[in-house]
Amino acid sequence: MGLALSLGRRGQGRTWPNPAVGCVIVKQGRVVGRGWTQPGGRPHAEPMALAQAGAAARGATAYVSLEPCSHHGKTPPCAQALIDAGIARVVAAIEDSDPRVSGQGFEMLRAAGIKVTTGIRTEEAGFDHEGFFLRTEQGRPFVTLKLASSFDGRIATGSGQSQWITGPEARRMVHAMRARHDAVMVGAGTARADDPSLTVRDLGIDHQPARVVVSRHLDLPLMSQLARSAKDIPLYLCHGTGADTERLRAWEGLGAQLLSCNALGTQLDPHDVLDQLGSAGLTRVFCEGGGALAATLLAHDLVDELIGFSAGLAIGAEGLPSIGALGIGHLKEAPRFELIETRPVGADILHRWRRPQS
Amino acid sequence: MGLALSLGRRGQGRTWPNPAVGCVIVKQGRVVGRGWTQPGGRPHAEPMALAQAGAAARGATAYVSLEPCSHHGKTPPCAQALIDAGIARVVAAIEDSDPRVSGQGFEMLRAAGIKVTTGIRTEEAGFDHEGFFLRTEQGRPFVTLKLASSFDGRIATGSGQSQWITGPEARRMVHAMRARHDAVMVGAGTARADDPSLTVRDLGIDHQPARVVVSRHLDLPLMSQLARSAKDIPLYLCHGTGADTERLRAWEGLGAQLLSCNALGTQLDPHDVLDQLGSAGLTRVFCEGGGALAATLLAHDLVDELIGFSAGLAIGAEGLPSIGALGIGHLKEAPRFELIETRPVGADILHRWRRPQS
Repeated sequence: MGLALSLGRRGQGRTWPNPAVGCVIVKQGRVVGRGWTQPGGRPHAEPMALAQAGAAARGATAYVSLEPCSHHGKTPPCAQALIDAGIARVVAAIEDSDPRVSGQGFEMLRAAGIKVTTGIRTEEAGFDHEGFFLRTEQGRPFVTLKLASSFDGRIATGSGQSQWITGPEARRMVHAMRARHDAVMVGAGTARADDPSLTVRDLGIDHQPARVVVSRHLDLPLMSQLARSAKDIPLYLCHGTGADTERLRAWEGLGAQLLSCNALGTQLDPHDVLDQLGSAGLTRVFCEGGGALAATLLAHDLVDELIGFSAGLAIGAEGLPSIGALGIGHLKEAPRFELIETRPVGADILHRWRRPQS
Repeated sequence: MGLALSLGRRGQGRTWPNPAVGCVIVKQGRVVGRGWTQPGGRPHAEPMALAQAGAAARGATAYVSLEPCSHHGKTPPCAQALIDAGIARVVAAIEDSDPRVSGQGFEMLRAAGIKVTTGIRTEEAGFDHEGFFLRTEQGRPFVTLKLASSFDGRIATGSGQSQWITGPEARRMVHAMRARHDAVMVGAGTARADDPSLTVRDLGIDHQPARVVVSRHLDLPLMSQLARSAKDIPLYLCHGTGADTERLRAWEGLGAQLLSCNALGTQLDPHDVLDQLGSAGLTRVFCEGGGALAATLLAHDLVDELIGFSAGLAIGAEGLPSIGALGIGHLKEAPRFELIETRPVGADILHRWRRPQS
């Protein structure tokens, strides 16, 4: 199952709106087939592994990181493919929460006389598929918020200088994290200040995640990295209903995909922003700030994983805060996260936290 | 040597102005004596270990975490004691930088026909004795700056609430860290806001480090934990020359020790503050903020070790910053530290950094 889980993770960031699943077929203690969901979400993991196993699949055990699907979508149901191949036993990490599957995949297998075991490394699988589950159940993608800051939580000096607070190893790891998400998201302030391309670089990966900019007034420079690359790499612009029509047209002309979102006070409603991204098919979004967007997501309890890179340098109180105003009076109102891990990355530290499991 | 180093560390926080040394006497592969510098700085580690070894010291090897002293201070020289006991070989981690010793201890041993080896785990020993070395060489104590903050580097909410950002395990570790320093130091703002006692609690340790408050105008409440305990546990108050005479008298009456320090702009000169603490005999000071004192020490390059406890909670930009204004325009001016370690402590993370070794 460990292998199935790690094969599944290979697809993360590339299979949306489908889940990134891994499948390993074992016969008499020997791996005869390995597969994972392919870019674009098809073929699924099971037919990939079955194709590799060929006739050896007969009487074998299939380990899958998610319940095999039972419905005819763009591909025939994987449960049927496992039955047809003569698989004797299926071990699945977790049940699919998609109402079109949700236990029916297991039922179909059992009805065909296949032995089904589930509940193996369920927590890990739940974490891997959480974006897919969230989109299915709540209509929004999983949100990772990443903030790279100084020891004292500053993302730039008072004059706006942010390159570079963290070292090359941390920045390289950020690119690897981008690649495992469906989209990279920033607020308008960061898009204006840093002119980022939000692409994955220097990792030998040709796949690029989509980019998302949240900008109520769509006041983003048309001469920018994002504008230049909008035709080649998907760019979603979440704007308010009052955004200037000429700007909308200009960005449309550049190839951007415009998502008109509801306002909430002076900002865009982050629930609506994420719902629209969910409707566009995104299951995992990697938000890289800035402070205002980070604060909005946190204040609305929309951050699933919080990742910090902290450098051993002090910027001081004039620096730009990593998280904007939250309006917290008492500590008990402050959003709390549970530690996943902390470790050194080059000269900096990485610390990962997640929303407490209720 | 590992044992000698860890025995030596037992004395940290209690031996000032003397170094906290460890000594292990080994004969034919068996430990026959162990000793460390006793509270108050006397007896030294070597006579403690020799007393335990007795006649077995003859022909044995003594491992010491610092060069044995060669001068008659309040105790006879340890080098002579080792010679008199018939020690055959001395292995020392590092040479003493005290000009009264500095190689003369080794010389005295060699002149008596004892084989001397040095340079074993020198870096560790240098770190352990750094406070003693700094005071001897520069007249100031080693400064550890500890800041416990939220994920975004805030030490309190906008309304000043700081109890508790970090959990009980982190707070317990802070008490253990206090116990290994000669004094705990805070700025006036923290002393007023938190009414701290700055003592070591709940660890079964009866020794208490001294307390230091830096307050230019000495405007500290006389009805406070610090005032109440000033008779029992040393309290140093670093104030400016213009502090109110009645306040000075009141604190003196309570048992506090007053250190009049030079001003530098609107603050006390941190160099003079530390020099005066060094003259008072302190070798290791544990500064727990607040933001203003932290910023002053950092701006003057007076922080030797930087310790962060970070909690998985977000307070936002209205919160109190862990480090006050530093006046940094460019990132290259920001004080940088090198990572020592990071690890989870309860629900929080600990990260330790130190001044880059030049």
